[in-house]
Amino acid sequence: MVLTRGGLVEGVHRGRLVVCDASGAILEAAGDPEFPVYLRSSAKPFQAMPLVLSGAADALGLGEEELAVACASHNGEQEHLAAVRSLLRKAGLTEEALQSGVHPPLHAPVAEELARSGERPRPLHGNCSGKHAGMLAVCAHQGWDTGSYRELTHPLQRWVLEIVARMCGVERENIPVPRDGCGVPTFAVPLRGLAAGFARLATGRELPDRLAEASLRIREAMRSRPFMVAGTGRLDTALMQKTELVVKSGAEAVFAAGSPEGWGVALKISDGASRAVRPAAVAALGRLGAGVPGERGLSEVRNLHGEPVGRLIPLV
Amino acid sequence: MVLTRGGLVEGVHRGRLVVCDASGAILEAAGDPEFPVYLRSSAKPFQAMPLVLSGAADALGLGEEELAVACASHNGEQEHLAAVRSLLRKAGLTEEALQSGVHPPLHAPVAEELARSGERPRPLHGNCSGKHAGMLAVCAHQGWDTGSYRELTHPLQRWVLEIVARMCGVERENIPVPRDGCGVPTFAVPLRGLAAGFARLATGRELPDRLAEASLRIREAMRSRPFMVAGTGRLDTALMQKTELVVKSGAEAVFAAGSPEGWGVALKISDGASRAVRPAAVAALGRLGAGVPGERGLSEVRNLHGEPVGRLIPLV
Repeated sequence: MVLTRGGLVEGVHRGRLVVCDASGAILEAAGDPEFPVYLRSSAKPFQAMPLVLSGAADALGLGEEELAVACASHNGEQEHLAAVRSLLRKAGLTEEALQSGVHPPLHAPVAEELARSGERPRPLHGNCSGKHAGMLAVCAHQGWDTGSYRELTHPLQRWVLEIVARMCGVERENIPVPRDGCGVPTFAVPLRGLAAGFARLATGRELPDRLAEASLRIREAMRSRPFMVAGTGRLDTALMQKTELVVKSGAEAVFAAGSPEGWGVALKISDGASRAVRPAAVAALGRLGAGVPGERGLSEVRNLHGEPVGRLIPLV
Repeated sequence: MVLTRGGLVEGVHRGRLVVCDASGAILEAAGDPEFPVYLRSSAKPFQAMPLVLSGAADALGLGEEELAVACASHNGEQEHLAAVRSLLRKAGLTEEALQSGVHPPLHAPVAEELARSGERPRPLHGNCSGKHAGMLAVCAHQGWDTGSYRELTHPLQRWVLEIVARMCGVERENIPVPRDGCGVPTFAVPLRGLAAGFARLATGRELPDRLAEASLRIREAMRSRPFMVAGTGRLDTALMQKTELVVKSGAEAVFAAGSPEGWGVALKISDGASRAVRPAAVAALGRLGAGVPGERGLSEVRNLHGEPVGRLIPLV
């Protein structure tokens, strides 16, 4: 992927890409498919599965909006905050229980609006607050401690690790588990494992029955409420609105998508540049026959005056 | 340069580095020294030289603060806005003349403060407003049109192009000149030319007398008022406070510094990641014997809870 300005290349983004079926067989690869990648927020659909598997989703009467926001890296828009609050309320909790850390809302207009209102950002506004609310709801349902849910030794996190291992087809012992930006464990698996995991998430294939059922329910929630998973202007939302895919991006330029046709794709931009993810993903999906109407695998770069000054061009 | 999380590499930044003397001779290089780089804001000291060369600086009674802010990618802090306003006032102009485009102040606390106050960002708050004010002051002094100063055909921009060519030792005809983010021309020269340009800026060597004099005056203004050139928490300011160097970074991860000992260094992170510039530059300067007290060529990455999760490690 190159960034041009005038007639010259100003920047270069390298990356790796793997396409797998649900058995884990590689259909296409560029770069090393076995080198590990930290899943970051691409793990969120897996991290939300205990909501279904524990029975909490049914017992608490969670709707698709609440399940979708539990899988979200959301913009902090009003709809997102309402869904997170509702999820917490149904679990008998308040936003004070969230240990998701504080950052301004991802969507710049929302962040500006919040600053203008004089309100300080709280954990609720952070992009991971739905994931944390979902984790807390499972703890409340199971009668587990809600103060220590971020620890890897907590039964919830041990469960999530098992789910990630099973979904991605990797032995639990072989998954490095440091902390993510929001403080819960994150997971490294071979890029191939992430692609296979999304092929399974999208189809339920090659999974034990209960995990297959949870996969399809999470997939349906994300696909029915794509706005809840990200929000205005965001790639994951646009792709789920316009294609048959289930999609979840992560920090440091990770991207994963699964098709009901039985394949999953995982992409990692080596330098972690989020700007390269959209054109790279759109171009890759186009080659896979999952073309995205209205999205081009090429984006124009404009300056502060709106004048076109360059382009981001996928080379693979 | 690698970014680690837990025990694994999560990201990789590649780059090029050249060290030159004022004659343009290469003292050290990693990567291709001849491949062009867009100077972006690293050109600002050169773009400010017409203020000195035209006699405007003396005629308008500009102080070091005003010259330094004309070379700045500033944070939009109060001191910066005051210096830009003062520069415009001395030139008989107001901030309405600025065509530098609108973006929120670079320094997040200032941007938040501005949003909280209900004020909208104006061109004055943009990091390039000092450069634009300096360009306008030259136009006012010379009796040139102040409405079209962004055009490459304007006498000011033709002059700046000649200065960049002479400072960097490149034929004017060989310099691609598309627009920068703020709408004025930017320039591509071989990375070697940028390093040589900063060796000349720092010493006045290998330059015609008037350009040598202008170089040293600009250098002195930047070095006496390092806060004006960037601001709180910024690399250029810290390096000029702690070393003998004259330093100016640019967008897309360009970094240039010149030493009074007669060498200049230019660095470009290929993917444009600004987070890689500080550790790479500090490590490179350390190897060049211009070690920076209190700065390490290695930085810790912390999550939203302040917990250390990884490190940025320069490999060269």
